[in-house]
Amino acid sequence: MTDTIRKRLLVTFLGVPGILLMTWLGGYWFSLFTLCVMLIAVFEWKLLLKPIGAQPVIAVLLAGVLLQFLSFTKFALLDQFEILLIVGVLTALVEIFRKTSLHTLNISTTLLGFVWIGLFIGGLAPLRFYEAGGYQIGFELSIAMFVTVWLCDTAAYIMGSQFGNRKILPDVSPNKTWMGCVSGVVAAFISMLVFYYSGFFKGFINLRDALMLALIFGVLGQLGDFAESMLKREAGLKDTGSFLMGHGGVLDRFDSLAITAPITYIYARHFIL
Amino acid sequence: MTDTIRKRLLVTFLGVPGILLMTWLGGYWFSLFTLCVMLIAVFEWKLLLKPIGAQPVIAVLLAGVLLQFLSFTKFALLDQFEILLIVGVLTALVEIFRKTSLHTLNISTTLLGFVWIGLFIGGLAPLRFYEAGGYQIGFELSIAMFVTVWLCDTAAYIMGSQFGNRKILPDVSPNKTWMGCVSGVVAAFISMLVFYYSGFFKGFINLRDALMLALIFGVLGQLGDFAESMLKREAGLKDTGSFLMGHGGVLDRFDSLAITAPITYIYARHFIL
Repeated sequence: MTDTIRKRLLVTFLGVPGILLMTWLGGYWFSLFTLCVMLIAVFEWKLLLKPIGAQPVIAVLLAGVLLQFLSFTKFALLDQFEILLIVGVLTALVEIFRKTSLHTLNISTTLLGFVWIGLFIGGLAPLRFYEAGGYQIGFELSIAMFVTVWLCDTAAYIMGSQFGNRKILPDVSPNKTWMGCVSGVVAAFISMLVFYYSGFFKGFINLRDALMLALIFGVLGQLGDFAESMLKREAGLKDTGSFLMGHGGVLDRFDSLAITAPITYIYARHFIL
Repeated sequence: MTDTIRKRLLVTFLGVPGILLMTWLGGYWFSLFTLCVMLIAVFEWKLLLKPIGAQPVIAVLLAGVLLQFLSFTKFALLDQFEILLIVGVLTALVEIFRKTSLHTLNISTTLLGFVWIGLFIGGLAPLRFYEAGGYQIGFELSIAMFVTVWLCDTAAYIMGSQFGNRKILPDVSPNKTWMGCVSGVVAAFISMLVFYYSGFFKGFINLRDALMLALIFGVLGQLGDFAESMLKREAGLKDTGSFLMGHGGVLDRFDSLAITAPITYIYARHFIL
């Protein structure tokens, strides 16, 4: 057993129950957990951009992420439009006084960082706290999302590395095969069907919802994975951070969840009432 | 009189009354006007980014700008958070299939373009249609903004070029002087005081509002000007487009307004009720 695999197992055996515990505790615990993930992600974003020469305005990015976090956890003083305006105007203001010739890159990667971390990763919070008919169904939705996304990842990895032949997008993510991706989607559907038929959702969602969520977790989750791989590859970095020993960084571990969380939240707002 | 000056005068003598007329007509006329400005701005953004090698995803940018326009003109099917998510996810999706090594730059400039054009320039619409106490005070606010920003620009240009000595930020905008900037702010205050004391606002705003708006138009307006000059300078382009003969492009002509419009709208929402 290599050192990396040993470290990965350690993170898995601590991380998976840790996240499930935070999700179960909810309230301030889950808020704090989301905030920590976001703050670490900001510094990884800075790291990820270094090789391509971009220097996002970290102070503004942090301020934006904090405002977004407050707005997602119901201490909102500002709405989405106002937060974006503040981030945009402050970034431009700081950049005007900076000595650099890469203003466009700096301003735009500050904004991308804000959207990715503040809105996408930050989407974990409103999903967890989502209520339908006075009941916080966000708990069940979050647990189902974490478990399904992890199963999808694992199935894709195992089936892809054992039986995969045809590469899906070798320029973006050289190891991913059609076999792996399809297996991931199948695993997502199996997982959601098990959740659904076991009565885990307490009747708050119907079969159509369960299948739509399986699609979101299995397909859009993998899209998040591809997108993050692409940016990482461009930067020439294997992992976005060494924070989670051998597991890549937070941006890596939350690449699928960053897309599935806000989209599941929006799906719930429209269809799970 | 040089050819450029002749063309500038032509644009001024057609453009200024044209914009004021559209503002007066309001309704579909002003919506259409805003939409045209936004669409031209999208293509100028593409043009502006060419020299630095960035290729924003124009189809997604257009879709995002249209969704934002609909949301600003009250045909909203989606909220701000949802529109941003759609723009973010679609940009990532398209970029994954693109053959390029500048994904980060392409994705982030697509987002910056969306925020600048969709939210900032697009902010002209909700400002124009802003209602307080059943009356569309957005008309008066928009007229005061257009006139004040133009007077500020003109005062800054004339005073700066005649009496200006000390450059303010030579790296960003080599021609701007302290004299010009301060004169612009003074002109903005005079303009707003004249509007205020003439009874133009029909009692909907008080003196404090008038002074705050003068600050927004005079100071933040010039910030927009600096920000646009900076990006233009980086791209090595004198004007962002030749659409408005000699006047630079739409991004150029609406550089101050892109910041003042959404901020005035938000100011109104909070303080002019």
